[in-house]
Amino acid sequence: MAADARLAPWRQRVEAALETALAASADTGSARLHAAMRHAVLSGGKRLRPLLVYAAGAATGADETLLTAPAVAVELVHAFSLVHDDLPAMDDDDLRRGRPTVHVAFDEATAILAGDALQALAFEVLAEAPVDAALRVAWLQSLARATGAAGMCGGQALDMEAGGRRIEVAELQQLHALKTGALIRSAVRMGALAGGAGPGVSARLDDYAAALGLAFQIRDDLLDIDGDSASLGKTAGKDQAQDKATYPALLGRDGAGAALAEQVARMRDALTGWPGDVGALEALAVLAVERRS
Amino acid sequence: MAADARLAPWRQRVEAALETALAASADTGSARLHAAMRHAVLSGGKRLRPLLVYAAGAATGADETLLTAPAVAVELVHAFSLVHDDLPAMDDDDLRRGRPTVHVAFDEATAILAGDALQALAFEVLAEAPVDAALRVAWLQSLARATGAAGMCGGQALDMEAGGRRIEVAELQQLHALKTGALIRSAVRMGALAGGAGPGVSARLDDYAAALGLAFQIRDDLLDIDGDSASLGKTAGKDQAQDKATYPALLGRDGAGAALAEQVARMRDALTGWPGDVGALEALAVLAVERRS
Repeated sequence: MAADARLAPWRQRVEAALETALAASADTGSARLHAAMRHAVLSGGKRLRPLLVYAAGAATGADETLLTAPAVAVELVHAFSLVHDDLPAMDDDDLRRGRPTVHVAFDEATAILAGDALQALAFEVLAEAPVDAALRVAWLQSLARATGAAGMCGGQALDMEAGGRRIEVAELQQLHALKTGALIRSAVRMGALAGGAGPGVSARLDDYAAALGLAFQIRDDLLDIDGDSASLGKTAGKDQAQDKATYPALLGRDGAGAALAEQVARMRDALTGWPGDVGALEALAVLAVERRS
Repeated sequence: MAADARLAPWRQRVEAALETALAASADTGSARLHAAMRHAVLSGGKRLRPLLVYAAGAATGADETLLTAPAVAVELVHAFSLVHDDLPAMDDDDLRRGRPTVHVAFDEATAILAGDALQALAFEVLAEAPVDAALRVAWLQSLARATGAAGMCGGQALDMEAGGRRIEVAELQQLHALKTGALIRSAVRMGALAGGAGPGVSARLDDYAAALGLAFQIRDDLLDIDGDSASLGKTAGKDQAQDKATYPALLGRDGAGAALAEQVARMRDALTGWPGDVGALEALAVLAVERRS
């Protein structure tokens, strides 16, 4: 598995498309709210989820021009979730990607509303994508399910409830399958839908995505104990300070490393022998597992 | 304008459909989150927006069975907005429809997530409606726009910013056109879309909806000064206590009454000579203007 030359151009494309999406209705409503939305989205994120949309599209032979709308939409949902997760009533974080979080840079009410408006914008972007209605509806189904109570929001609720309580690895895995896994799987699924992937094809890509989601989370937990705030762009050591259930806390550092390796092998298996172009999916697996922030 | 015998059965239908939508994925994720979502939605609201979907459908000859999905979706968005508006960082309300608000009955984090999940559920319900994809996409476009920064969320942000500041009637009107008007107009538009209404037809119904939205808000402001908490089911006198810009505060009680009458006349004009069945739309105009809570 190695780097892929397509990632940088895709990243540029999604940055430009995020700018466009945020500018579209910026003359209506509150200038302060729009500024908060821009602060939340245009702050140099890794754009992992949009890149997964493009990579899954490449693996299934999708027309690349179709992929911008789902790439933007999934990143808007991710950005909304970070804004709300950072709120004082949730994880209470002051720092994100090296900058003040939205409720610090603006205020709490504006942060709540910016998150809400970003979610709505995600669905608006999909509903207005220049593709046939059936594909738009399939994307919308996938992203809405991945966002709601049976997906990301449900996982975040479980995470809040687990705070301080002793939980088992199976429960932690289930929590993260919802909290981070659902959206990552939706990104891959939306890319594959654009490529016209059937159910069997999707199941293999879905296994890759589920493994990637877990690997990403385990890496996140390891970075929290090994990284420093400056390179992370967020407060390091926060999980331990808040007595959060994490992979290293439950399995030890070595055990968490082994669990990470297991998910890497699972990703490799899912992609082995795949008839299409999996170079970008492989590169993203490396990125998720080896990142320093 | 008089009562309409269809309102009660429609209300029953939407209550049942809301139950079904909330039950659909209740076995996945957090039981506490699902309970909070049920608390927010199944608490005896007026269901004005769902009834507007049905009434606009009746006026445009829509097949009534098509209307349940948009009726449910618009009420879920409304419920999500109430949960977030009631938060301590926003309007800080303890009482809603005579019961503790979600963050009081549960906690702030759960209330934030319940609102987020209700918004996602609204779009999921539309995306999965058993109608053709083109109609689903048209509904989704309308509801997403009405919800986001150029709609309800934008209006709520303007409302927060106006707190304490002296504003003019024109600004207040613009604020409410977004905060309450956008969603009410979307409800009417979704009903009309199901009836296959063309742009000309929609413009007249849209004028009715815009007038209804304003009338509803003026009535709300008047109830806040004239009503009591018990019959309102929320804290009376709150606008004055928070020094909020309201129609009675800017125009006096009589001036606000005159502004209300003006919107009633505008609704009547919009419906006069309409070829379809406007009985239910007329009944809802009366309901919005004469309500005691």
